[in-house]
Amino acid sequence: MEDDLKKFVLFLEQEIQKLDLPKSPENLYDPLRYFLKLGGKRIRPILTLLGADLFGEKYENALSSALAIEYFHNFSLIHDDIMDEAPLRRTQETVHTKWNSNIAILSGDVLLIKAYQEICKQKAEHLLELMSVFNKTAIEVCEGQQLDMDFETRKSISVEEYIEMIRLKTSVLLGCALEFGAIIAEANTEDKVALYNFGQNIGIAFQIQDDVLDLYAESAQFGKQIGGDIISNKKTLLILKAYELANPFQKEFLLNITQIEDSALKIEQTKTIFAELGVKEEVLKIRDSYFEKGLTALNEIQVSKEKKSTLIKLVDYLKSREV
Amino acid sequence: MEDDLKKFVLFLEQEIQKLDLPKSPENLYDPLRYFLKLGGKRIRPILTLLGADLFGEKYENALSSALAIEYFHNFSLIHDDIMDEAPLRRTQETVHTKWNSNIAILSGDVLLIKAYQEICKQKAEHLLELMSVFNKTAIEVCEGQQLDMDFETRKSISVEEYIEMIRLKTSVLLGCALEFGAIIAEANTEDKVALYNFGQNIGIAFQIQDDVLDLYAESAQFGKQIGGDIISNKKTLLILKAYELANPFQKEFLLNITQIEDSALKIEQTKTIFAELGVKEEVLKIRDSYFEKGLTALNEIQVSKEKKSTLIKLVDYLKSREV
Repeated sequence: MEDDLKKFVLFLEQEIQKLDLPKSPENLYDPLRYFLKLGGKRIRPILTLLGADLFGEKYENALSSALAIEYFHNFSLIHDDIMDEAPLRRTQETVHTKWNSNIAILSGDVLLIKAYQEICKQKAEHLLELMSVFNKTAIEVCEGQQLDMDFETRKSISVEEYIEMIRLKTSVLLGCALEFGAIIAEANTEDKVALYNFGQNIGIAFQIQDDVLDLYAESAQFGKQIGGDIISNKKTLLILKAYELANPFQKEFLLNITQIEDSALKIEQTKTIFAELGVKEEVLKIRDSYFEKGLTALNEIQVSKEKKSTLIKLVDYLKSREV
Repeated sequence: MEDDLKKFVLFLEQEIQKLDLPKSPENLYDPLRYFLKLGGKRIRPILTLLGADLFGEKYENALSSALAIEYFHNFSLIHDDIMDEAPLRRTQETVHTKWNSNIAILSGDVLLIKAYQEICKQKAEHLLELMSVFNKTAIEVCEGQQLDMDFETRKSISVEEYIEMIRLKTSVLLGCALEFGAIIAEANTEDKVALYNFGQNIGIAFQIQDDVLDLYAESAQFGKQIGGDIISNKKTLLILKAYELANPFQKEFLLNITQIEDSALKIEQTKTIFAELGVKEEVLKIRDSYFEKGLTALNEIQVSKEKKSTLIKLVDYLKSREV
């Protein structure tokens, strides 16, 4: 990671480590202390700092908004992990596994409220605007999570529906995080909208990239099981695109793959048919179209190229995570 | 119920029935439509309207705050019902029973966010104050729920600890509901504090009354199983007070009661030992001390007695629910 990015990362991490949550009730606050300090890349709150910096505001002044974004993100992870019955998060036990589901529900709730408390620490004249963007985004994230759960039992999902789901579930929060910074910096409306659109579109691109990495990453760098989505028959963009491209015979073949019990064989056969259909290339094309939309939006913003360079570096850094 | 109270109830119920939630995702919004229309006494949002009315503000102007309070209350019920594994709420199926736990978690989350959205509809100059009171209260309610769960597995709980738990879990929200009205009406600080204290103290009193009603209500009017708390060995104020008053022999007796399998016998023996110890009278004394504290606070508020009469009527109406 580049040095000028590291400055933001270090500042934020320091502030998160300083967090002073109440001691009691232990079963409410210990899970939050644990989960918030598990780390993660902290991309979202860093975007808030970068959003403020972009328009010449001291990034330290956007700290509370950045923390609000990080709290919200962690709230949604804690609750999602219950719903997905995920045992691990960032290679450590999830809250509902280490404690229990009730504690995970309640400590998640508190974290959402604490996100609002952080927003209230920003200047009063920015409060209504921050709240409006945040509420809208928070509801969209919940809608995205619901759609994701609905998709598990739905037979056919179009590529468009899938992208709308990931837009809601994961990408609007990147837009919101950046817009928070722009609001604190009192950017003009066009620039705020453009920055939001930049965040949302690169968010979609990265989510698509994650789908691709699941199957095509080199495992040494990836840190997760290769083909996890294929093994669990998850409906990712790769598989939806494959169905879209397949002829009836190939569709039958794809359907049969889901029944294979040997993981290695299942992944191998999936890769074979995906190669036949050109799935990876098609999906990467979609990814790149969102990267482009995002960069076009960034381009429209009325600040110097130099000012934009840190954001570009962040995108490059995230992009470099293989494929 | 008195006619001038009914006006508030009708207005609020009408507004809740008018609610226009999005159609999709159905699994997110159908549960909210269902749950919000189950009814309940709507005491909390009515307190917000009465709080505004008390200081000469049009109660209609406090509608959004009132809805925020009702949404928050319903959010906490939906999540608490999951945690308590409660099959029924207001004689109807709970959300996690009618749908499932995941849907109950997520639709609860959305309802909490929608509470904040309602707060944002009030005048911008009141926003920060409303948010501060609301955030503090919301966190306290979560802390109270956590303490309540912790108490289930704790051996000894003092009367003071129990009252602190119900203060957090149920009473601070009544204080907040009233203070919301006072904020909208731009009451002075002393009056706001006094009104909050009135709400909090009568809240504690009513919660204690609920504990008493569980065992001593006349079933025809009560609508719940008499002695439900005793049958499930719940640690209510009655039982905690009984342990406080009991000699070692009586403590042994109380402990043995928890093992009785025949519900009727269990309730009968509990009533016998409670009568011997004078538990009901002692607990009603505590209840009345909180009613008194509440009414003293109301007394301090600098508005005419006439203006206070609707609040007094509401207290009387709630008090009249037996014992």
